[in-house]
Amino acid sequence: MSVFTPVSEGQLGDWLRSYSVGALAALEPIEAGIENTNYFVTTTQGRYVLTLFERLSAVELPYYLNLMAHLARHGIPCPAPIADLADRYLSQLNGKPAALVTRLAGASIERPEPAACGELGALLARMHLAGRSYSGYLENPRGPRWWRAAAREVRPFLDRGQARMLDAELELQSRHRFADLPRGPVHADLFRDNALFADARISGVIDFYFAGDECLLFDLAVCANDWCLADAERDRRLEQATTHALLAAYHALRPLSALERDAWPVMLRAAALRFWLSRLHDFHLPRSGELVRVHDPEHFRELLALRAEARAAPWLD
Amino acid sequence: MSVFTPVSEGQLGDWLRSYSVGALAALEPIEAGIENTNYFVTTTQGRYVLTLFERLSAVELPYYLNLMAHLARHGIPCPAPIADLADRYLSQLNGKPAALVTRLAGASIERPEPAACGELGALLARMHLAGRSYSGYLENPRGPRWWRAAAREVRPFLDRGQARMLDAELELQSRHRFADLPRGPVHADLFRDNALFADARISGVIDFYFAGDECLLFDLAVCANDWCLADAERDRRLEQATTHALLAAYHALRPLSALERDAWPVMLRAAALRFWLSRLHDFHLPRSGELVRVHDPEHFRELLALRAEARAAPWLD
Repeated sequence: MSVFTPVSEGQLGDWLRSYSVGALAALEPIEAGIENTNYFVTTTQGRYVLTLFERLSAVELPYYLNLMAHLARHGIPCPAPIADLADRYLSQLNGKPAALVTRLAGASIERPEPAACGELGALLARMHLAGRSYSGYLENPRGPRWWRAAAREVRPFLDRGQARMLDAELELQSRHRFADLPRGPVHADLFRDNALFADARISGVIDFYFAGDECLLFDLAVCANDWCLADAERDRRLEQATTHALLAAYHALRPLSALERDAWPVMLRAAALRFWLSRLHDFHLPRSGELVRVHDPEHFRELLALRAEARAAPWLD
Repeated sequence: MSVFTPVSEGQLGDWLRSYSVGALAALEPIEAGIENTNYFVTTTQGRYVLTLFERLSAVELPYYLNLMAHLARHGIPCPAPIADLADRYLSQLNGKPAALVTRLAGASIERPEPAACGELGALLARMHLAGRSYSGYLENPRGPRWWRAAAREVRPFLDRGQARMLDAELELQSRHRFADLPRGPVHADLFRDNALFADARISGVIDFYFAGDECLLFDLAVCANDWCLADAERDRRLEQATTHALLAAYHALRPLSALERDAWPVMLRAAALRFWLSRLHDFHLPRSGELVRVHDPEHFRELLALRAEARAAPWLD
């Protein structure tokens, strides 16, 4: 379970008086998150999500909340932060930084067909285009700098083969910094459970709390590594049809360059490395008192090994 | 009909490429407006309203669009302007200033019961509270300055009794400027057709293109004069139950002061005068080439006469 900071109806009712969203009707904890405390909040006005931020700092939070607000006002179906009567997105509740955002309709898809991957690709392209005019800047907090720090911490827990693989991937990535690829705000964590669908259309993208400035292609690589597997449990190679649908729909709105094409295989490995490292870290160095479900790091080690072996990654051909 | 500037699907499809709202799926003219050209626009992403502004200037439009954006991000269910890829709410289409806003669900109510008036009162209070932090300023464009100008123009068309009544009301209002009442951005035109309801709850407030900075109580008076009549066609006196529901729900969220209570009867006359004048103006001095339905000025003359006669207007008792 993932409610780190409980909130009572009385506390929330008081807190909502500094907002223009009506009176509290219902409060329901969300069990799914692993980073923050989340509640579904229903008021006489609408449906919202309340988040109490457990780890993020006052530097990162304005970047995330302002980014969501920016994307929402460009028509991207993402949670829109609600400003309080003092005109702030970020407030305090039970001693934690807290924000109220709109709740989007829809449900995530476990086994995406090519059509869903096309929906995702188009939305990702629109999100990247809308993000261009965003004025905030935050270096991807799970980027190369973090990879090296995390690698130092988890290395003592690895066997010799894993350690050798980790060193080799870090070395490869250090030779590919992609300074010339288009960059901007990316979601960086757009797994299947962070996209909502309704009536076969994508109706929401949620959980922007790993976003940052990064190569736009990195977002596509994160998506491909989760949405486009031949079989998420048994065969972690990229499937041609779904990968193509993702890339083609994206390309139709933000054309991918020859440079991006060349970077694709290494970018897929970068995206796999980032999640292998975070899962190793969560597995071997769990935060104290944490009751959240820890994902098996092995999934991303195997996936990374397959990306490293692959002669060519599916592309737009 | 009220499409002054036609827009084709081809033109709109091109124009939408500078937005992040997906591809055009359907375009449908809206016949109801009397000031601007409006279309319902459906894209692969969502439902919007396109407005081409026929008369408003580049000074007023940013005030309106930024006000709607401000209220929307505070959770008020009003149309939220969509920013284009250059991060602007206001663009150009077919030579006219144009904006795309979200389309709200719901339908207006012709004969509001007290419960609906309570919904309206609560929303109006929340809107006024959220409007406090709005940084824009525009003097109510249909305020006392405009009344005097409009009165000069329509006076030649009035009979002696009407002219005497108009002079008396202007004189009364000139002695009541309400400098000490709470002021802020008000909708100023929140008639029944500008509020949407779904499942007996207010789901939207639309058409902010007469908004401006004014006494907050003026907004309540405009609403009472339209929502709370004993019989909108035959008996234009205020009905106790609906008026009380409107005021009590408002008062619960933004308490009305003794000064506001004292101002109420004169404010009801101010709100009636404003619409009597604009209807006289539209009736006697229609804009050339205009095909819109002109409302009968007599409704507001009778209503104003009743407010002037009334010993006491229904209040919170």
